[in-house]
Amino acid sequence: MKKALTLALSTAIAFSMYAQEPVEQSAANSVFPKGDRIRNDHFKGTAYLKMLMDADSLNPTSVGAVTFEPGARTKWHLHPGGQILLGIDGVGYYQEKGQAKKILRKGDVMKCPTNVPHWHGASPDSAFVQVAITNRHLGETVWLHEVSNSEYAK
Amino acid sequence: MKKALTLALSTAIAFSMYAQEPVEQSAANSVFPKGDRIRNDHFKGTAYLKMLMDADSLNPTSVGAVTFEPGARTKWHLHPGGQILLGIDGVGYYQEKGQAKKILRKGDVMKCPTNVPHWHGASPDSAFVQVAITNRHLGETVWLHEVSNSEYAK
Repeated sequence: MKKALTLALSTAIAFSMYAQEPVEQSAANSVFPKGDRIRNDHFKGTAYLKMLMDADSLNPTSVGAVTFEPGARTKWHLHPGGQILLGIDGVGYYQEKGQAKKILRKGDVMKCPTNVPHWHGASPDSAFVQVAITNRHLGETVWLHEVSNSEYAK
Repeated sequence: MKKALTLALSTAIAFSMYAQEPVEQSAANSVFPKGDRIRNDHFKGTAYLKMLMDADSLNPTSVGAVTFEPGARTKWHLHPGGQILLGIDGVGYYQEKGQAKKILRKGDVMKCPTNVPHWHGASPDSAFVQVAITNRHLGETVWLHEVSNSEYAK
């Protein structure tokens, strides 16, 4: 009987571990591959990009999945053709120049207006996965200055 | 001891049920709300739309999450400005005129070229959730004829 109890308890623990697994997977990226580490200096901290679709001459929209590790963020930047962000997982930040910082979570959607400086990234304690949908028919992204630690924390 | 064993087994069963819950959620739609049932006649079967972002005069891209119940599909149609589909969950179909039907799963990405007739939907045994990214600067979607059962099954 003791053996049966041990087995039952082990089963309970095993199911308990399994039950938490999707949450862990989810924090990493639940839909798209994580892609390659971003090595350019437009980002601070550790971030990954999986390009999902390139723009072309007939369809000027590119789509990419970005995974920000906790604390990672872009520089301030703007898009001449605008951008739409889809929150896929985790907890992230989005801020437009002159506006308060907003929190983005799974399922949240944000439009970055054309030519408005903004930045986005992860919160300090959670990774953030976003899909960025960027229109390039009016020009490429213009990169500006770093997001200071006080701007990030505010 | 028998009571303890019963408790442990109940715990195991409870965790087992909990462990399966994310999978069921996932099949319904893991990221975005399901939205409202689509009532127009451009679709066959049961499908739901959650508009995520409307196009505007500066950013002509609209984004919507569509959930197709098993067997549901669009009519044949085309987009003057093209479309990009992101597979979010389940198992779906995509076919362009004159091409073989393709299977779409979570994480798959498809570009529907401008003005090329195509259809998409769920497979017969699984729902399919997609994000559709549609450019509207060259005109609205043009709806064509139904996808016949033999086209769907081929």
